[in-house]
Amino acid sequence: MSHPLDQNDPLAVKRQAFQVPDGVIYLDGNSLGVLPAHVPARLQQVVAQEWGNSLIRGWNDHGWFDLPAKVGNRIARLIGAEENTVVAADSTSINVFKVLAAALQLRPDRKIILSDNGNFPTDLYMAQGLRDLLDRGHELHVVSPDEVEANITDEIAVMMLTEVDYRTGRRYDMSALTEKAHASGALAFWDLAHSAGAFPVDLAGAKADFAVGCGYKYLNGGPGAPAFLYVAPKHQDQITPPLTGWMGHDAPFAFDLDYRPGTGIDRMRVGTPPILALSALDAALDVFDDVSMNDIRTKSLSLCELFLSEVEARCPNLELASPRDPNVRGSQISFRFKEGYALMQALIAKGVIGDFRAPDVVRFGFTPLYLSHADVMRAVDIMEEILRDRLWDSEEYKTRQKVT
Amino acid sequence: MSHPLDQNDPLAVKRQAFQVPDGVIYLDGNSLGVLPAHVPARLQQVVAQEWGNSLIRGWNDHGWFDLPAKVGNRIARLIGAEENTVVAADSTSINVFKVLAAALQLRPDRKIILSDNGNFPTDLYMAQGLRDLLDRGHELHVVSPDEVEANITDEIAVMMLTEVDYRTGRRYDMSALTEKAHASGALAFWDLAHSAGAFPVDLAGAKADFAVGCGYKYLNGGPGAPAFLYVAPKHQDQITPPLTGWMGHDAPFAFDLDYRPGTGIDRMRVGTPPILALSALDAALDVFDDVSMNDIRTKSLSLCELFLSEVEARCPNLELASPRDPNVRGSQISFRFKEGYALMQALIAKGVIGDFRAPDVVRFGFTPLYLSHADVMRAVDIMEEILRDRLWDSEEYKTRQKVT
Repeated sequence: MSHPLDQNDPLAVKRQAFQVPDGVIYLDGNSLGVLPAHVPARLQQVVAQEWGNSLIRGWNDHGWFDLPAKVGNRIARLIGAEENTVVAADSTSINVFKVLAAALQLRPDRKIILSDNGNFPTDLYMAQGLRDLLDRGHELHVVSPDEVEANITDEIAVMMLTEVDYRTGRRYDMSALTEKAHASGALAFWDLAHSAGAFPVDLAGAKADFAVGCGYKYLNGGPGAPAFLYVAPKHQDQITPPLTGWMGHDAPFAFDLDYRPGTGIDRMRVGTPPILALSALDAALDVFDDVSMNDIRTKSLSLCELFLSEVEARCPNLELASPRDPNVRGSQISFRFKEGYALMQALIAKGVIGDFRAPDVVRFGFTPLYLSHADVMRAVDIMEEILRDRLWDSEEYKTRQKVT
Repeated sequence: MSHPLDQNDPLAVKRQAFQVPDGVIYLDGNSLGVLPAHVPARLQQVVAQEWGNSLIRGWNDHGWFDLPAKVGNRIARLIGAEENTVVAADSTSINVFKVLAAALQLRPDRKIILSDNGNFPTDLYMAQGLRDLLDRGHELHVVSPDEVEANITDEIAVMMLTEVDYRTGRRYDMSALTEKAHASGALAFWDLAHSAGAFPVDLAGAKADFAVGCGYKYLNGGPGAPAFLYVAPKHQDQITPPLTGWMGHDAPFAFDLDYRPGTGIDRMRVGTPPILALSALDAALDVFDDVSMNDIRTKSLSLCELFLSEVEARCPNLELASPRDPNVRGSQISFRFKEGYALMQALIAKGVIGDFRAPDVVRFGFTPLYLSHADVMRAVDIMEEILRDRLWDSEEYKTRQKVT
């Protein structure tokens, strides 16, 4: 089945770069991206050749040591970051800790971290853990997204926000809020978990101070792929890393007894990087080499609008949870439905894979590199059938599994 | 060429479980273990099937969520740890931070971390970073290894030691020092980087409080494999994790706004685990399933003694840097040689891969699962020739590369 909007899609050819399972319409690339088709062979080469044959020599011979910087620079291109401002390392959670601790040191006289209750919880958890660890009177102010702007005062040390809300897809105006934060003397720290690879981001243009992001969502790096972090050039030599590991040392192989931070973004490295996982992410980024983030955004808007309009026309039981205005939305559409968990299980059973987020949100991510408008129509057909025939209303689908 | 000591070696059959490159005698398993032969196929399955076909469903269907605990329990068996006391996660450096921060909280009235100048530098760096971050008067006392015992006083909060010195192979008496630390009210925290998989460790028997260790040395988990950490059962529900990520939350998928630590060792998890790297480590541990750590130690001693005696007899220019007494040594033998860097380069050029550690140490690790006594003899033959003919004395070998 084809759809007229797919006829002149410059990204249509990219679908063959991915191993989309037969019979699956995958609307969960914002949880875990689809496997790029060339990654298995590349990883096999890394395992059997680079590790298997080169062994310890791989650190030199295959560029393992520089891989966090290399992958960082490849990601930088997708998020509007300057060269040598991004490093791929650790998990998003740990990168939140590193960035936030470094940022607080730059504003020693301010005690408030401002965030919002739409932030992904681990960002808030890491901030709480840091606040308690420091035990120096810092406070985490968590307000609703529409109260953020009004709460930017000259008491704020760091404004810590995720650009796109993981449940609703609501997207902040990064540039305007960063400017507002700076006008109050606060630093702006952005989590790009649902931004990087999803649409154009312009960290340098927005004058963001810090950012983190995820390797396994729109960047398709594989389950638990290494995350990344960004530090604006002007801050790089001012910050003191809180996690002072040997890979961030100025001379890692001198084996000095005292830590001395490395130059620039390198100091934000900590331990030995997981080369297998990082190599998979590196390979996965190849698919972005010849695409324009603007083309990705254009198609994302088209896919999202089609989905939104079709669902509203055919599935009246669902309540839109995402902003209607595409300008304040990422690359996902979410709806509220009381039996959302069961609905999503029923959808998955019929090959439409989205995500459920408690208490009642069904979430659909749109990844222009491997989705077509025909996929969107087919997904709505299936959801319409499930709702019309109440196929979600069974114990099989209502029984919760531990992880979804 | 065979050697009589290989005739009745119960571990000889294990060599075929590894992909040892042709023409290589690998004496660097204490830097990066050899690829277990079945890992490429297993990893291919994880990539193409688990990720490629199951996509997000892999978290349930393939046990990804429980993998850090599963791998942790497999490692626990090798280091004498109780069930559910070990989790595989993050890097060793980050685990040092997590454990040390948690340990200091248990001794709020004490300010001194005791360590030694033979510790791997990243352990000291992480302690320095934590000390500076906390800024509450903590001190890191770094003494020489033979001064540690005398410096255990009732001012010490935590004694942080690596059981086996990465340069010399000197091994502490974990049980005796832990007892001494406890008698002074201090906690004992052991880094098992050069212990786990190298010889029997008995964390529970020694009453160790905390431990960390490395996945890519004797455990053969691949370059930058996830590390592990251990928390004694009695401390698990007493400690407050400093890195409070969603995977350590009591209910990760409830998406609460407030952090609440998980039960037991689970709270020491932080972010989403790197499933590809963790699966490789998981698979690599298979080779330990049917071997006895006592057999590994017996063969390790035999390999090391043969190497030591042959080198001393045939390479008089080398000065032993390791303890002569095997009871206070791990599974490596190190020598000092002024032109150690060039010597190691010459050895590597002839297929004998060891390691150089500044300023003048050549280090040889012995991994009983894939080395034979014949390998040891051949390695000494080559080293004897290099030293006799001064083959190390060339610009080619003296020129330093960035990483070795």
